[in-house]
Amino acid sequence: MAGDGITREELQLAARNHGMPLEALRYPVTPVGLHYLLVHYDIPEVDVEAWRLRVDGEVQLERSLSLDELRAMPSTEVVSTMECAGNGRARLEPRPVSQPWLLEAVGTARWRGVALLSVLERVGWRRGATHVLFTGLDGGIEGGIEQRYQRALPLAEAMRPEVLLAYEMNGVPLPPQHGFPLRLVTPGWYGMTNVKWLDSITLLDAPFEGYQQSHAYRFRLDEDDEGMPVTRMQPRALMVPPGVPEFLSRDRTVHETPVAVRGRAWSGWAPIVSVDVSVDGGGTWSAAELDDDAGPPWAWRGWSFEWSPEPGEYVVACRATDARGTGQPAEPVWNVGGYSNTAVQRVAVTVAG
Amino acid sequence: MAGDGITREELQLAARNHGMPLEALRYPVTPVGLHYLLVHYDIPEVDVEAWRLRVDGEVQLERSLSLDELRAMPSTEVVSTMECAGNGRARLEPRPVSQPWLLEAVGTARWRGVALLSVLERVGWRRGATHVLFTGLDGGIEGGIEQRYQRALPLAEAMRPEVLLAYEMNGVPLPPQHGFPLRLVTPGWYGMTNVKWLDSITLLDAPFEGYQQSHAYRFRLDEDDEGMPVTRMQPRALMVPPGVPEFLSRDRTVHETPVAVRGRAWSGWAPIVSVDVSVDGGGTWSAAELDDDAGPPWAWRGWSFEWSPEPGEYVVACRATDARGTGQPAEPVWNVGGYSNTAVQRVAVTVAG
Repeated sequence: MAGDGITREELQLAARNHGMPLEALRYPVTPVGLHYLLVHYDIPEVDVEAWRLRVDGEVQLERSLSLDELRAMPSTEVVSTMECAGNGRARLEPRPVSQPWLLEAVGTARWRGVALLSVLERVGWRRGATHVLFTGLDGGIEGGIEQRYQRALPLAEAMRPEVLLAYEMNGVPLPPQHGFPLRLVTPGWYGMTNVKWLDSITLLDAPFEGYQQSHAYRFRLDEDDEGMPVTRMQPRALMVPPGVPEFLSRDRTVHETPVAVRGRAWSGWAPIVSVDVSVDGGGTWSAAELDDDAGPPWAWRGWSFEWSPEPGEYVVACRATDARGTGQPAEPVWNVGGYSNTAVQRVAVTVAG
Repeated sequence: MAGDGITREELQLAARNHGMPLEALRYPVTPVGLHYLLVHYDIPEVDVEAWRLRVDGEVQLERSLSLDELRAMPSTEVVSTMECAGNGRARLEPRPVSQPWLLEAVGTARWRGVALLSVLERVGWRRGATHVLFTGLDGGIEGGIEQRYQRALPLAEAMRPEVLLAYEMNGVPLPPQHGFPLRLVTPGWYGMTNVKWLDSITLLDAPFEGYQQSHAYRFRLDEDDEGMPVTRMQPRALMVPPGVPEFLSRDRTVHETPVAVRGRAWSGWAPIVSVDVSVDGGGTWSAAELDDDAGPPWAWRGWSFEWSPEPGEYVVACRATDARGTGQPAEPVWNVGGYSNTAVQRVAVTVAG
């Protein structure tokens, strides 16, 4: 079976990090602990009394802000779907060796915090500022380079009003693994941009060239390809696998028909305009019904499809299309880092007689 | 490397279920979302308004209890360490194919609920009752058998005052993935006994012979061995890996010495009486210091070891011994189901010059 031969190093990552079991697609907001989690290094230990967010670089006035000071500022809440850029990596052949995600690296949370823009306005920016660098407290070695986790955004992107410095997730303080005490939330972008355990925000007068920006998280067709930066989430639909599972194979058996096939779909680029379902593995497609409430623009949209099968063997598949006209490929598009593999989900289903 | 060649079926389980990143050993009570999680089938969807706990079988009076009725009864709280019986399975060679745990399938939670004994006293039991069967709402196919998840306890074990029907974890309602609205908590026993999403409790006049009792969760040296039931947690010590990790290998680099090596140890049989640390992979051992507060009897105990190494390469290991005199083996003891592999943890560490 494609995907066999996972190495112990990949398994070590899979044992630490975790996806969202797909039946959790039933929740519009993913309960804490079911949201996907990827931690590059270790979860840092943070003494919140001593912790400060430093804001420096091309600013008018350097600042150092405590969590209480940030909490005293006007707060805002964003419901946002977040997906790892490497979701689908382990479905590529040959498989890029890193965190071996199949389909589950996604979740939607209700984040509360301060608009990044409010903090930028408080410090002011110099005329030459073009980029904003976010540095986490988490550090380690990656690609042979000892580093703290760092990613940058263009200033214009950072100033979007929905970009948050979040201190709450689903109404409770950020759990340690999701960035306590403060993380960046950039709705629409893949997870790597949403820097956790923020230590500092630095305004730059040039693009950032660090490891996670210039080497990792680039869509490269081969090792010689300079590639394109991975940024926003490509469209994807996922379904709650119908019926009940076999423990090991996760193959499904359906006993009662009709079946309400349900799922959610999202895109970081544009609203979802359609979801299609196939029960023959992608040979023929039918339109699913989108939920009435499109919800906030940064969150996934629910869909459903009533299916009345005869007993037999099926392969149920789903695919989304967004308002830019972008869909999902039938087969994976291989790339060096294993990013953005949005090849359609297929679930083997036996409808019992 | 031992453990290579993980199959896609194992990866599918590893992507759904998750261990506790070992740096989370720093928390005496594991934050929600970091506690290990194993779900045999799917997380069921429960309408708590319609939900009732049925108590039947060899009882004086069958009852059906709502969550409100259970919450109105006197409540009790237990801090308890829970470990999957399959923790360490993926460190066996050849590897039994199931959820491929390395070391991380553990966590400690603060559970609140009603003592099972209180509920048993409310329904009364008939003279012939000898066992208590717990049936979850979760179902699927396993070993070729369609089933609901079921496990039983001897009546005397079930009547221990610390055995809980828990509706809270760490002060909040049970998250869906940990058994909402009600689960069994049997302090000292491996995780499989702690049945989630309780549907019914049935008093039996004979041992339960279902799949999860008579086939799975038995320690069998070969396929012909009838084996022994897996019950309580064997002693184990785990450490927070020192220093910082390399992303993929998880190998560690230490920059600052001395190093406070810290961890926790537990046994379901008896209190932990000693923890030893080795920095040469288990050739020589030194006693670690146990934390003063042994804590509640069902929870892990903290320990620490001050280490002042010269620059160089080390393999740090730890091992626990409980008051029954049981320790941990240097090498795994192979068994068919891959249970109770408590072979000592070893962490490769480079101390930088």
